[in-house]
Amino acid sequence: MQRNARLVPQRKRYLFVCVNRRPDGTPKGSCAAHGAVEIHAALKSELAARGLVKTEVRPCTSSCLDLCWAGPAIAVEPDGYFYGRVTLGDVPEIVASLERGDRVERLVLPPNDFDEKTSAPSLPLPLKAPS
Amino acid sequence: MQRNARLVPQRKRYLFVCVNRRPDGTPKGSCAAHGAVEIHAALKSELAARGLVKTEVRPCTSSCLDLCWAGPAIAVEPDGYFYGRVTLGDVPEIVASLERGDRVERLVLPPNDFDEKTSAPSLPLPLKAPS
Repeated sequence: MQRNARLVPQRKRYLFVCVNRRPDGTPKGSCAAHGAVEIHAALKSELAARGLVKTEVRPCTSSCLDLCWAGPAIAVEPDGYFYGRVTLGDVPEIVASLERGDRVERLVLPPNDFDEKTSAPSLPLPLKAPS
Repeated sequence: MQRNARLVPQRKRYLFVCVNRRPDGTPKGSCAAHGAVEIHAALKSELAARGLVKTEVRPCTSSCLDLCWAGPAIAVEPDGYFYGRVTLGDVPEIVASLERGDRVERLVLPPNDFDEKTSAPSLPLPLKAPS
């Protein structure tokens, strides 16, 4: 069984998806309020389906990356760039890009987004289903 | 006020301290059972005291890094190395090293530690205080 004989290595990449949740109505927002938990789950599921999680990319969650206003935010390491304003609809493109070894440029946060005062606008909050 | 005028940048480094907790007695162990939550808090406090958190190093927590047997584990990014078997007593040395821009070699996990089958032994579990 070659699969079992191969040792589990350090992955080529680690994703750190911020899943911090702030109270509803916090002005700067939070990644979880914009669906980050679901985005992490979708990344995990999609990467596993493609057989990438044991060698290529490990999808982790993280505490606050100090990018609340530009969330959902994901640190892509060791490349050292951050995706921001990620939606569930972006997951297939992110995974395909990871598989190719390149990145989704439109989602990469530029320097101004690292400061709340100079950041581009936040994503609108998702509509809540009636309870 | 120069401090307020300076924009918050992407940090030079991000620490991802695994704080995953598995049920007591799980053979492969878990980072939280070895004090990872306290280690993250100490790193945060020490880095803040040295004025490093807004520009140099952001200490975050993460979900499981798949290094349970070699924990507490910390991903140091974007450098792309992992510290393992970290104790609270190692925190001052780690912070001093981050400030200098080098690393604590004795704590850096070698490739064999990324697989449970070839890893060096885990740290002993801390003694519990009588309740």
